[in-house]
Amino acid sequence: MPLGEFDLIERYFTRDGGRGDVLLGVGDDAALLAVPQGRVLVAATDTLVEGRHFLPDAPPDSVGHQALAVNLSDLAAMGAEPAWALLSLSLPDADAAWLGPFAAGLFALAGRHGVALVGGDTVRGPRVVTITALGFVEPGLALRRGGAQPGELLYVSGWPGEAAAGLEALLRGAASPDDPLVRRCRYAEPRVELGRSLRGRASAAMDVSDGLLGDLGKLCASSDVGAVLDLERLPVSSELARRRTPADCERLVLSGGDDYELLFTLPQAFAAEVEAMSSPALPLHRIGRIEAGRGVRCRREGRPVTIAEGGYDHFA
Amino acid sequence: MPLGEFDLIERYFTRDGGRGDVLLGVGDDAALLAVPQGRVLVAATDTLVEGRHFLPDAPPDSVGHQALAVNLSDLAAMGAEPAWALLSLSLPDADAAWLGPFAAGLFALAGRHGVALVGGDTVRGPRVVTITALGFVEPGLALRRGGAQPGELLYVSGWPGEAAAGLEALLRGAASPDDPLVRRCRYAEPRVELGRSLRGRASAAMDVSDGLLGDLGKLCASSDVGAVLDLERLPVSSELARRRTPADCERLVLSGGDDYELLFTLPQAFAAEVEAMSSPALPLHRIGRIEAGRGVRCRREGRPVTIAEGGYDHFA
Repeated sequence: MPLGEFDLIERYFTRDGGRGDVLLGVGDDAALLAVPQGRVLVAATDTLVEGRHFLPDAPPDSVGHQALAVNLSDLAAMGAEPAWALLSLSLPDADAAWLGPFAAGLFALAGRHGVALVGGDTVRGPRVVTITALGFVEPGLALRRGGAQPGELLYVSGWPGEAAAGLEALLRGAASPDDPLVRRCRYAEPRVELGRSLRGRASAAMDVSDGLLGDLGKLCASSDVGAVLDLERLPVSSELARRRTPADCERLVLSGGDDYELLFTLPQAFAAEVEAMSSPALPLHRIGRIEAGRGVRCRREGRPVTIAEGGYDHFA
Repeated sequence: MPLGEFDLIERYFTRDGGRGDVLLGVGDDAALLAVPQGRVLVAATDTLVEGRHFLPDAPPDSVGHQALAVNLSDLAAMGAEPAWALLSLSLPDADAAWLGPFAAGLFALAGRHGVALVGGDTVRGPRVVTITALGFVEPGLALRRGGAQPGELLYVSGWPGEAAAGLEALLRGAASPDDPLVRRCRYAEPRVELGRSLRGRASAAMDVSDGLLGDLGKLCASSDVGAVLDLERLPVSSELARRRTPADCERLVLSGGDDYELLFTLPQAFAAEVEAMSSPALPLHRIGRIEAGRGVRCRREGRPVTIAEGGYDHFA
């Protein structure tokens, strides 16, 4: 039974996020929000299009998760504390069987990070989900892409490439929803706590969304530096190593996106302190070094290797 | 020639908005924004879908205008001062002939209201435009839907219904782009200055986006009051009156959206002061009165009239 737009918003998306800084949430022309005094507002927006960023048969809760996760990952990459989100939802119909789990996936992730949904829009159209995430950071402590310096160390968190491997498994059509790689593809966790821990330590950071190699190129361009990437240091999870060839693993780690891992640079002085944060749940891998110049030079065991740019460019 | 996504962002959407409160704009994982001390953040998001909110052959500059205008109208309805916007753009291809004028229309309106574009996302997909607008308002002075009291006066600004008449002219296929109704449909101006002027005066406000009658019903429901609407007081522009029957005019004024006019209520004590703001450029029309109870009662010359609900519900 189709619902009216306003019933729909009421039914699925009006929840008290439990934040005292939401002066007025969903239901008026706009939300009223109290930014803590002395904090800088951090704002990111990302769109997921059905058939491009998620498969038409993706579990709706995974779409809700991903739509928020990709935005929280952007805030994480700035070292920000997430607070609020606005949701724009274009849907072909008001299908309760889709909306219920979509909202559940979104609110489950929101709840884990204390994020309140404070506004949005629902329209009829192709299935396209846009979220704008808002958060705060202390002045001067935001992580940017442009601060890397020659001589600094280059790190990546976690297991980039697993989500891309999960997508490939899904596209081959034989994957179980419980496959750990499929779950990474659908429910990867944004590295919000790691981003917060890197404030005041990392000189540059970004999240890996278009592939490690391409994103590293962007970080270097923003910082006006070059980088050496040691391919033998690339992290390959045991799950990935068990199931794919070494060449596939390297390709997936270099070019896969959507794991929400953080790529960051550290002055040598902070290396020991940050490496001590590495844990089995979220390992931090040193994968190279920043150098003067421009562009990314790949090495294997110290010898130069040429690798085609693996970045993912939507319009290329 | 297709452009890469990042070139595209660079080329069309990276402009210095001239705001000192943008600490970091387009190009990093998120924007860094300085909210003035002692102000409340106001946030709204709206989505336009091709074929639903704009015609496939709409001039791209009008789509850029509308995508921002519908959001600035939400901020206007809160009495907020707009500051920043984030743009999510889903497009089937990176067509310079579309993107150039789209950006021009968006930036022209942004420039008139001092709004800086601080972030966004571009993806390949159906043509769907989502903007999130951010602004500020003084604590306690935001206009809400829920503050109307029995005995207060009901107003609407400008000429609601003109945009809907312009759309009907376009759909009949014989309209000139210079037709004033077509221009209202494509380039209506959000009432930002009016919204600011109503702070501390209007007890409730909202923008007319789904039709005056339906939106008045929402304002009444939020305020837990009823309203009497005097149909003979509805504003009908001379252009509309000249071209459409009286019955059509009434229908268009009651059910047309997207003129970005403001519907608001005033305590009697503020009536004279606010009516003095009325001008030929932006007339303010007293169209009824708030009363105890619930729902909207329409009258013509004092006699009750029944009118089918004219609100526009995307999923109904």
